[in-house]
Order: sequence, then structure tokens, then C-alpha cells
Amino acid sequence: MHADHIIVDVNIATMEPQGDDLYGVIEQGAVVMGEGVIQWLGPMSELPELDLLSIPVTSAKGAWVTPGLIDCHTHLVFAGNRAREFERRLQGESYQAIAEQGGGIATTVSATRAAEPEQLYVSAKQRLDALYAEGVTTVETKSGYGLNLAAELKLLEVAKLLDSHHPVSIQSTFLGAHALPKEYQGDSDGYIDLVCEQMLPEVAAKKLASAVDVFCEHVGFSHAQTERVLKAAQDLGFKLKLHAEQLSNMGGTALAAKYQALSSDHLEYLDEQGVKAMAQSGMVAVLLPGAFYYLRESQYPPIELLHRYNVPIAIATDFNPGTSPLCSLQLMMNMACTLFRLTPAQALQGVTCHAARALGLADRGTLAPGQRADVALWDIEHPAQLSYEFGTKPLKQLWIQGVLSKTF
Amino acid sequence: MHADHIIVDVNIATMEPQGDDLYGVIEQGAVVMGEGVIQWLGPMSELPELDLLSIPVTSAKGAWVTPGLIDCHTHLVFAGNRAREFERRLQGESYQAIAEQGGGIATTVSATRAAEPEQLYVSAKQRLDALYAEGVTTVETKSGYGLNLAAELKLLEVAKLLDSHHPVSIQSTFLGAHALPKEYQGDSDGYIDLVCEQMLPEVAAKKLASAVDVFCEHVGFSHAQTERVLKAAQDLGFKLKLHAEQLSNMGGTALAAKYQALSSDHLEYLDEQGVKAMAQSGMVAVLLPGAFYYLRESQYPPIELLHRYNVPIAIATDFNPGTSPLCSLQLMMNMACTLFRLTPAQALQGVTCHAARALGLADRGTLAPGQRADVALWDIEHPAQLSYEFGTKPLKQLWIQGVLSKTF
Ligand SMILES: [Zn+2]
Ligand SMILES: [Zn+2]
Repeated sequence: MHADHIIVDVNIATMEPQGDDLYGVIEQGAVVMGEGVIQWLGPMSELPELDLLSIPVTSAKGAWVTPGLIDCHTHLVFAGNRAREFERRLQGESYQAIAEQGGGIATTVSATRAAEPEQLYVSAKQRLDALYAEGVTTVETKSGYGLNLAAELKLLEVAKLLDSHHPVSIQSTFLGAHALPKEYQGDSDGYIDLVCEQMLPEVAAKKLASAVDVFCEHVGFSHAQTERVLKAAQDLGFKLKLHAEQLSNMGGTALAAKYQALSSDHLEYLDEQGVKAMAQSGMVAVLLPGAFYYLRESQYPPIELLHRYNVPIAIATDFNPGTSPLCSLQLMMNMACTLFRLTPAQALQGVTCHAARALGLADRGTLAPGQRADVALWDIEHPAQLSYEFGTKPLKQLWIQGVLSKTF
Repeated sequence: MHADHIIVDVNIATMEPQGDDLYGVIEQGAVVMGEGVIQWLGPMSELPELDLLSIPVTSAKGAWVTPGLIDCHTHLVFAGNRAREFERRLQGESYQAIAEQGGGIATTVSATRAAEPEQLYVSAKQRLDALYAEGVTTVETKSGYGLNLAAELKLLEVAKLLDSHHPVSIQSTFLGAHALPKEYQGDSDGYIDLVCEQMLPEVAAKKLASAVDVFCEHVGFSHAQTERVLKAAQDLGFKLKLHAEQLSNMGGTALAAKYQALSSDHLEYLDEQGVKAMAQSGMVAVLLPGAFYYLRESQYPPIELLHRYNVPIAIATDFNPGTSPLCSLQLMMNMACTLFRLTPAQALQGVTCHAARALGLADRGTLAPGQRADVALWDIEHPAQLSYEFGTKPLKQLWIQGVLSKTF
């Protein structure tokens, strides 16, 4: 066994369920990291013989480790500021009304198209740093504020730069079909042609995204248009995801299931048929309590149905300037419990093992031999505290691929 | 003019309203700090002649300053952890049911009584540091988890220690009448005797608190008991505050008005008569959106009535282990807008000028000559952003009494 670092006297939430224990707890344990992965973990009493004098050892003194957190749905890269729109919404205007007047997403698209990559990088890095400071080690981020070939590529290139310069692992998703750009007003099929025929092949050729997503909604794209994009993306070998059933039930999730998408996200208006389709296809339900909160939604996602059909639930920030300007995955854990009545264990699954599955990543999200050594050390008495209390910064140390990258 | 530090090229939200502009904006301004207070502020073009070569100058490059933020209602000092109770509430048990079974606040009281002052100091400091990192320069904190003379004094002494060792200004409030300790079950009047006859005089003699608060509620203390405490406290020269109308309308706020209390806090069940009483008495309404959110309350405080009668609204975290374990004043600004529909300007008033007034502090909460030089410098384009976006850490520098105490 190659050991680069050992954590001893630590309680471990492996996130590999053991019977009723969703945390998969190992008390008074040890974690051996080496070559970027977990080499061994288990009770201290079973720790293999290692030359402890030559290997750095961290004594956790009874603190807890969990897998590094995973934010599986964000829109981190954009320019512009919508504080003014926020003020207008507080004067009673609806999100849709603002959008129809050329505000909303169009504001962000104009600012983003005009922005230099350096500027996009700096603002996205600030957001990424905020997540990183909370123990997040993998972040998915979507394009979708460019809405033409050059601007979409620009966003994905910024994400690629973040991935190579920042310790956090970035997963890029192409979301060209996020909204209809103003130059295509009245010709949404024409825009979908552009997405399928020019953007997707270019993104694939440049290897700038591993997944493709579509906003399937009456204010986004139709069922038929969504299917065109999913099909074209599948043919090019992309993993698939979908924004669906956020404002109405358009059957997007069932469509995503038909194409073996990894996840369907939002889901406030999902019905039992949609839940069944997810279960049969092995999809993950990604719930976004920040958008639910920020839009003061009263329609809840069908949590009980998702539980009944054993659909894994992931939780993400959906960080974006219009409907979830909340850059905190720990706040989403609290909101998942407080607003959606998930238990703290389910919330932690939602930002670890289930989030990894929503990204199609089998190498992270749990602590087990062979998994990436993305490990967060928390000054807590029980992992439920991570969902219960917010703001008091329990993270003490963070390893990414076995490298100690943060100490508080 | 004695100048220790000058901030130039800065947009200033003075929080002294100018007509419709609640922010009291001065664009392209300068702030001169000296001897712990603001010596001068105004447009750059009117900056008095100063020897700029001998005085440290910060160029804000068009960023914004506001008064340091004020969290005017917290319960920072306690021991124990209620993550388990959180789990039980998620399994459907009510706060009241848990309280009646000896859980809830009783758990915290037992742990707090057993805790050493050092332990209380360390955990309270961690919470205070979290607020401080957000730009908070004044924090009110209440006792109320000791519920006997020695333990209440212990909590207030920890708060006093924080005040002398931490840059943030601490305002201590005695809340002996927070809950009935188990040794007084069935004898709440006897406990009020203890509060009035022993605790209050001792706290006054030791100068351990500047204000006194009571939890006036059917799960707290009655109208008559509340009045006894307010009267005794007033006779000893304390400022007065009240937890009132959170779960029911018991007329506590009108009672507080009768005793010229500074504020009444929570107020979900306040009626028009109570609002009128606040207006006539010049009280501040302290709204606590964290508790509203965490308890999934559906009864909203009477925001429109408070506006109609020109009652100033302050916003605070109410940080506490049972009903608001949310240690972030910036999150409360977002919640005040999102949940209570305050505008961003009203939310910022709520954590600056109106919060100062809720504490009876005339020397802070606005930026004006002679005020404490508690100044927060933010990397934002407009102060509305402070309420709109959460988590991305806009604070760049923080001065407390003119001393630069944080740089990010
Ligand atoms: Zn999204
Ligand atoms: Zn309180």
C-alpha cells in the first residue's frame, strides 16, 4: 500500500449505506490516502502496519470526515448583475413578466456576450472559491448565457481554464438550449438547428463538455425540440441531463428517461408517471431548493413519490443570476431539510454519493478504497450538524485527490 | 481635523435617507476617519485639504462603503448541540411537542449549565467570527440558557470577555425570563420572583447587561409576569426589549410600548393595535426571518402595517440552537427580501440604522461626521447586491472605530 497521508482517530461517514445507516458510519477510524485515492479505511483497531514515522499523520481527535461535497448543478460562468431585477420583483413583477420585457436572462446574455474571458474567469472563480471554502471538491457548471457558437465556446473555455487552474474538479455541461436568443425570436426551431448542427459538433470536437442539458419548459424549449437536442447529443456521445418540470409538467423527465439521461433537475411539477420513468431508467432527481426558495414556489417536488420509487435525490445550488443567486451548498443542505423535509442523512447523500451519480462519476461521492481521496474534515459532533446549523464554518481541512488543499 | 485614514474614489451608502433615496448615496466620495470616528465625508470634489502624503489612503476604485452591519438580536452564548432535535422535527414532531418532552431549550440549558466558561467562549467566538467575516461590527447577545443566577452571570461574563477581546462591539442583554427551568415547573411566578429579586439586581450591580428582555408567549411568560420583569428592569435603569407575538397575540408589544421599550422582536402575530402602540412609543420592530424560515411559519409579520405607521424595521439573525441556527446576517437580508418582501434598501436599513436604534445606540448605524468609524468596504456595483446575492463574499475591508481590522 502506498500511503501519502493518514488521518487517525476520526469518525467516518463513508456514505456507503449499511442497513438503516445512510451515513455508513465507521467510528474511531482511520483513512489512508495515497496516489490520489483512498488506499484503506476502517476502524483504528484494524489499521494495517505502516511506517507512521515517515508518513504525515493528521489526528482528527474525534472529528468527522465525509467525502468532499459535490455541487452537481450550477451556472457559474456569466457576466452582469441582476440586483435591479431583484428590486423589480420585490415591487411585484413576475419573473416571466420581466423576461418577456427583455429583462431576465436576456440581460445576462448581453453582458456575457460582451465580457472578456478574463472577466468571466475572475467572477466565476470568486463563486467557485466560495463553494470550495465550504468543502466542495467537484462542481458541475453549465454554459447557456452565450447562446451563439462563439459565446458558448467562450463560456466552456473559461470553465476548462478553471478546471486546470483551480483545485476543485470542474464538470462542464453544454446548455446551448437554455433560452432563445433575441436574434432568433419567432424561430425557435431555427435556433435548435444551430444548437444541433453547429454548436454540438463543435463542442464535441473541442471536448469542451462531457454532458448536454436542455431547459424543457414553456418559457424554454418544447418537448419536440428537447428531443432533437437529446438525440443529437447522444449520437455524439455526450452524457445527458435536463431542466424539467420546474414551472409545468411537460413530460420532459420521461423523455430524458427514454434517452437514459443521468438526471432530471428541478421537478416541482413532476407526476407519478415521471417518477416511475426515472426509477425504471435509473435516473437521479436533482432538487434545487435555492430556486424554490428564491422564486417563493409553493408547488413542492414529489419527494414522497421519489422515495417510494427509490429514485436517488441529489441537491445542488443551481447558482445563477436569475433564480438562485445563492452560492452555498451547505445552505442548500439546510433548505433541503427545512423546505423539502429531507433528513440530514438524505441531504448529505444529495451532495455526495447521489450528486456523483447525477454526474455519472463513479470515482467519488463515497469514501472507499480506490475512490478519489476527496476528503473533508469537519469539526462537528455528528454529520446531521452539517444540515442543521448554517454559517458557523465547520470545515477544518480539505483534501482533493489526496492533496491537502485547505486548512482553517 | 484629525485624519488617521482616508478612503477615496468610493460610493457611499450613508444610510441617512435623502428624500426617496433610503441609502443616502454619495457617489464618487471620500471618507475621512480619525480618532475612531468619521471626521468628514462627502463628494471627492469637496474633500478638505489634507496632507495626503502623511495619511494612509485607500482607493476604493468605485466600490461601495456602508456602515458596519449590526446584528441586533442573537443568542450566541450556549453549549450543546441540537442536530438530533432537528432530525426529530424532520420526522414530524413539533417544536412544542419536543419542548414538552423536556427536549428543546431544556437540552441547551443542561449543557450550558454544565459548560465551563472557556468552552462557552470558544463556541461563541466561532459564531461571532462568522458574523464578523460578513462585515458585522456590532452584535447584541442575550443570556437565557442558564436560568439560575450563577449560570446567567456566567453567560453574561462570557459575553463581556468577548467584548473586551474581540474587535466586534458586543451589547449584552439579560434574558433570565427566557424559559421556565425544570426546577420551577408549576411555579413560574416563583421563578419570576427569582429573576426580579435576585438576578436583575445582581446583573445591574455587576453592570453585565445594558438591556433586559423577556419571552412573552404562552410557552414563555404571561403578560402579567412580563410586566413584572419590565417594571423591575426599568426601575434599575435597564433598556428594555421583548420577544413578543411570535406564536400568538398576547399583547406583549403594547405592554413593551407602555414601558418605552426599544424594540419588540418576532411579531408574526402582531395586530394593528400593537403596530399603533409601537408607532406612538417610537419602538423598532425587529423581524427575524431565520426563525420564520426555520419553523416554516406561514403567518407573516404585518409588514404593510409597520410601513403604514412608519415603524422602523430592523432585521437580525436570532442565532440560537432551537429555532434559528443560521449564523449569517447577509442571509437574513436576502430572506427579509425574499420571504418578507422588503426592498434591498429596507433590508440594509434593517441591519444598519434601524438595528442601531433597536439597541438604543445613536453613535452608529449611519455614516456621518461624529459617528463611530465602523465602515465596511464592498466589492459591489450597487448596495442592492448585498441583499440580492448570497454567499459570494463581497466584503473587501472592514474598519471598526477607525481601525482596519479585516482585509480580504
Ligand atoms: Zn439550472
Ligand atoms: Zn430570540
